[in-house]
Amino acid sequence: MPNYRLTLQFEGTNYHGWQIQPNGVTVQEVVERAVAETVGKPVRVLGCGRTDAGVHAENYVANFSVESDLAPERMLAALNSRLPDDVVVTACDTAPDDFHATLGVRSKVYRYAIATGGVRPALDRNFVTHCRHALDVEAMRAAAACLLGEHDFASFVTERSPDKDTIRIVRRLDITWSGRYVFIEIEGNGFLYNMVRTIAGCLMAVGRGLRPVGWMKEVLDARNRTRAFETAPARGLTMVRATY
Amino acid sequence: MPNYRLTLQFEGTNYHGWQIQPNGVTVQEVVERAVAETVGKPVRVLGCGRTDAGVHAENYVANFSVESDLAPERMLAALNSRLPDDVVVTACDTAPDDFHATLGVRSKVYRYAIATGGVRPALDRNFVTHCRHALDVEAMRAAAACLLGEHDFASFVTERSPDKDTIRIVRRLDITWSGRYVFIEIEGNGFLYNMVRTIAGCLMAVGRGLRPVGWMKEVLDARNRTRAFETAPARGLTMVRATY
Repeated sequence: MPNYRLTLQFEGTNYHGWQIQPNGVTVQEVVERAVAETVGKPVRVLGCGRTDAGVHAENYVANFSVESDLAPERMLAALNSRLPDDVVVTACDTAPDDFHATLGVRSKVYRYAIATGGVRPALDRNFVTHCRHALDVEAMRAAAACLLGEHDFASFVTERSPDKDTIRIVRRLDITWSGRYVFIEIEGNGFLYNMVRTIAGCLMAVGRGLRPVGWMKEVLDARNRTRAFETAPARGLTMVRATY
Repeated sequence: MPNYRLTLQFEGTNYHGWQIQPNGVTVQEVVERAVAETVGKPVRVLGCGRTDAGVHAENYVANFSVESDLAPERMLAALNSRLPDDVVVTACDTAPDDFHATLGVRSKVYRYAIATGGVRPALDRNFVTHCRHALDVEAMRAAAACLLGEHDFASFVTERSPDKDTIRIVRRLDITWSGRYVFIEIEGNGFLYNMVRTIAGCLMAVGRGLRPVGWMKEVLDARNRTRAFETAPARGLTMVRATY
């Protein structure tokens, strides 16, 4: 029974995230529907993680096992002809039987994009957050340094069950700029609910001068969400890739 | 009476082009509405040219004269707060009294974007045309060379009144590629209705090998629209800038 591995690209604007839920259309739902229409029966599609409503993906990894004779390139074409405009399979191959998109993830990369300045974005409005104020990128980099490595990120999780493990490893956190745009790119072994967006919100607070550089370490050490700044909007966030 | 000069950015997907018309919302209409709400009376806004339905703009130039005390930066903010999400004023200043966005244009630049390959675009689906086939960029460049300079472009105009002047000057026509994308950038003193999209359609026909390189010159010389290839879709076309 082939284990089809998919790479997906999607604009999250019109979805309530990846994972199937009762209130609202999700990406998993439309992908499972396309698979079901292709193979003629319902199939569970596993994804590399939850994404928030409105968050996008450039290389989202998913897999599903099903009895089928379709070669991967035929499966890709069949799914793309059935998926809506804002979701596409960019690659499909057959993975080893034990490949599991959710459990096997070793690290994920997210990018948060901010358009600064007095003029709101129009052409890319669904993919960037608008910040009217200039951002001090050097201050943001200095503040971000304390997040590298293994930490308890309890201050950066919006909803948390008390027993949940909030320890994660951030392997890389780069802040770059190009023209009026500032990009936060973060790589880690996993991310808590809203963690990247809360980190982005805190870094923007530092970049605007609303909080000093040293405040970020205080937030991290507090392990208390009420100490962090507000969560940055979903539209600026894109899941870039997952590695296994 | 100040003559406000605007630079506009818009996604044309949901508009029937720039120019006001009875059937469908146009960009001119929403800009004039924002101006009227700002200054309290109806004002005609002049644009640097018509655009087709679905065509985008990065730096569209417009102007309007009205009795107003608003400084240009206040006008910009007032308009942007009233314009829909997919239209934005990126710059505003006061121009000399004789500045006329329509009549003063010396040249315009358009870019046509094509995503090649078997996978349709998702994230940028409104801004590129999908071509499943590989394109031979060298052949496209060779075919494009004959269009440079002053010519009768009657073969590249979709609707034409018999007495209309179809002579135009193409000053530059660059074809570049990056990854799976091919870009056609064209600069000229003016463009006929559908001219850029018809040129793009012909160049894609050559790039796919459906027509030989020398065919482009035959099309140009024929001065007959029926000789050209089909007009490429509007979504791939963006008006880049106008110079005065």
